[in-house]
Amino acid sequence: MIAPNTARPSDSSAPFFTVEAELPGRLGRAGTIRTPHGDIHTPAFIPVGTQATVKAVLPEAMRELGAQAILANAYHLYLQPGPDIVAEAGGLGAFMNWPGPTFTDSGGFQVLSLGAGFRKVLAMDTERVQADDIIAEGKERLAAVDDDGVTFRSHLDGSTHRFTPEVSIGIQHRLGADIIFAFDELTTLVNTRGYQEQSVRRTHAWALRCLAEHRRLADAAAADKPRQALFGVVQGAQYEDLRRQAARGLAELDFDGFGIGGALEKQNLATIVGWVCSELPADKPRHMLGISEPDDLFAAVAAGADTFDCVSPSRVARNAAVYSATGRYNITNARYRRDFNPIDAECGCYTCAHYTRAYLHHLFKAKELLSATLCTIHNERFIVRLVDQIRAAIRAGEFDELRAHVLGRYYARSSAQRDERAEKCE
Amino acid sequence: MIAPNTARPSDSSAPFFTVEAELPGRLGRAGTIRTPHGDIHTPAFIPVGTQATVKAVLPEAMRELGAQAILANAYHLYLQPGPDIVAEAGGLGAFMNWPGPTFTDSGGFQVLSLGAGFRKVLAMDTERVQADDIIAEGKERLAAVDDDGVTFRSHLDGSTHRFTPEVSIGIQHRLGADIIFAFDELTTLVNTRGYQEQSVRRTHAWALRCLAEHRRLADAAAADKPRQALFGVVQGAQYEDLRRQAARGLAELDFDGFGIGGALEKQNLATIVGWVCSELPADKPRHMLGISEPDDLFAAVAAGADTFDCVSPSRVARNAAVYSATGRYNITNARYRRDFNPIDAECGCYTCAHYTRAYLHHLFKAKELLSATLCTIHNERFIVRLVDQIRAAIRAGEFDELRAHVLGRYYARSSAQRDERAEKCE
Repeated sequence: MIAPNTARPSDSSAPFFTVEAELPGRLGRAGTIRTPHGDIHTPAFIPVGTQATVKAVLPEAMRELGAQAILANAYHLYLQPGPDIVAEAGGLGAFMNWPGPTFTDSGGFQVLSLGAGFRKVLAMDTERVQADDIIAEGKERLAAVDDDGVTFRSHLDGSTHRFTPEVSIGIQHRLGADIIFAFDELTTLVNTRGYQEQSVRRTHAWALRCLAEHRRLADAAAADKPRQALFGVVQGAQYEDLRRQAARGLAELDFDGFGIGGALEKQNLATIVGWVCSELPADKPRHMLGISEPDDLFAAVAAGADTFDCVSPSRVARNAAVYSATGRYNITNARYRRDFNPIDAECGCYTCAHYTRAYLHHLFKAKELLSATLCTIHNERFIVRLVDQIRAAIRAGEFDELRAHVLGRYYARSSAQRDERAEKCE
Repeated sequence: MIAPNTARPSDSSAPFFTVEAELPGRLGRAGTIRTPHGDIHTPAFIPVGTQATVKAVLPEAMRELGAQAILANAYHLYLQPGPDIVAEAGGLGAFMNWPGPTFTDSGGFQVLSLGAGFRKVLAMDTERVQADDIIAEGKERLAAVDDDGVTFRSHLDGSTHRFTPEVSIGIQHRLGADIIFAFDELTTLVNTRGYQEQSVRRTHAWALRCLAEHRRLADAAAADKPRQALFGVVQGAQYEDLRRQAARGLAELDFDGFGIGGALEKQNLATIVGWVCSELPADKPRHMLGISEPDDLFAAVAAGADTFDCVSPSRVARNAAVYSATGRYNITNARYRRDFNPIDAECGCYTCAHYTRAYLHHLFKAKELLSATLCTIHNERFIVRLVDQIRAAIRAGEFDELRAHVLGRYYARSSAQRDERAEKCE
């Protein structure tokens, strides 16, 4: 069951990122990111393995379904098992038996969202008035931001911890992922304009500190420790001037690439990514944090984003929601009880090659763990393949044709499915 | 990740079972069972996939770890998804993507144990006085036995159902496993001698009805439906005369093999299996239901049993208990937090080849589903390999040497582990 490792160490003299094809008249492109654990052909969807495992799926199955890299989370791995244990294991990839490229998120999102009480706000509830102290009803805000860092309480046991830019980079160096992110402040759409301005200044100051700590640790590291690439994260919410200012500020610094994070509404995604990418240098890769909806992926690629991550394909799979060329549906629906077709007749994934809807329906009804495994394999394959198709279409000059064809079919079926699209990738 | 299917249809002219080596002076032997979905080299441990899935493990991984066959349960599959759906899928193996041989248990054990209220009694609580109406405190007995069959309530929703010999065989024909079992009455060690006598007579009468229904359905089946083998089940609790009488009675009938079931205490296992096997014809295989402890496996093989099934390797794995050559231990123990050795340095399973105790410890602490997958793969491999070694030792004339070596190491470590052995495989 062990697939051959197709990743290979890159030629160390080759550039970290090269653009190999472009969307005429737009910022979108196809290229290659080179890491010590192998190349990533972009645009690429990066499946999430938050706690050093893609939930319910073995790493060989992730490789087989086409995953080029895995993104884990510094916040979760800091709390459990702790970064020293991952370091002692030889780093994130060795710890989890994933020989390919790895990313870690900085923890900036998680320290401010998990348990912090404003998840409702992150779900883009813009009907509410703007305010800086909104927390979800019945929740205690568990995080406090100051100019030096964030004090937060663990979502596991309520214990108090503190992340600063230096702490986050220190953790990410011990985790040892190929691509790591600067520690940023997450704001929400209900924060005031004044707070967003202050936050962008703070995130910029933290970016400088992250770079300095990154250089210091890299200089002090053993000569054989693989080089880690550090991405700065562009915040600025829905404000064009703040987003452009944040991007310009980071563009001048010595980052290897950039993340695009923070609060934005779905309908503004392409616009905001476009503002940011038009300010960023063309020769560095751009990672869009937390999207996987097909229309969002096309929009973000066209606007200049190169890589993406999201927990949704795996999370919805565990709740029996599966993707198909004609939209998403729930396999526990009674109509699939004796349906002996695969999830998606057009899909060649392991699950669709070997299992019927009736069997998957049965596994969910019987509360069997294999339901999560099989549906996650399918959903991750679906999104990875979609982004692979987008990459091929850019190279072939057929991006718009692919977009019209794929989205026309995916969203045609029902308004019920359009409602599902409102779900935000957390 | 898809391993090649090494099973192959047997030559239909070859006998169902052949004995190829024997333990001198004892009833133990090595041989081959031939089924329409491939051969089973005996002695063999048959992993359990109760609901048409080995919990948390893909079938290719079961094949890779050496499983020769999978045993599912007629009771569970009758309730969910229903035997007609499995039949429509092409039978149990096709439904669950397992191309090799399959077994189904008759449901006799489950209708009388699941929800029936006497699980405590099944756990061999022989301190209590004998009585026929004992039920666990606070439980309502959910099953009623009469001479025609058993009326029981579903452990899922409390709905009322009835199994008779004909119903069980009908279900098992629709499930389509290669080896199926006659419907028997499960008794417990606290039933009176009088009840055990009555029960053995009843199970014999049911055996005749199972055979008749099996022949009727086989004659009526499509010509291309693979032939199913029917095993009679020997009951009789701890009574030598009843066990011998039951075995002799079934031996005269046209069964393809035999199951050894029912209530027995661990210290009497070898004795009881010996009584039964000395009455059964040597040219038919004998399946011992529900054992997987190393000492029990050696004892049962020496006494003449050929195949075994048990949920324990998988069930204890999900609770973080893992087997090693020097005994069973719990991977969540703090001492394994930063232990970068495999579960068992002598094991070559997928899990031991690729993962450390520290990683598995982390997966359990982080409540990750992959913990169940990886530890089940290891535990199933451990027991499958042990029985493979027993088979090789019989052929090589080294059974007693292997037994002394394996059990001496496995049980030497601590009395705490000996306590764990008391756990009964349900």
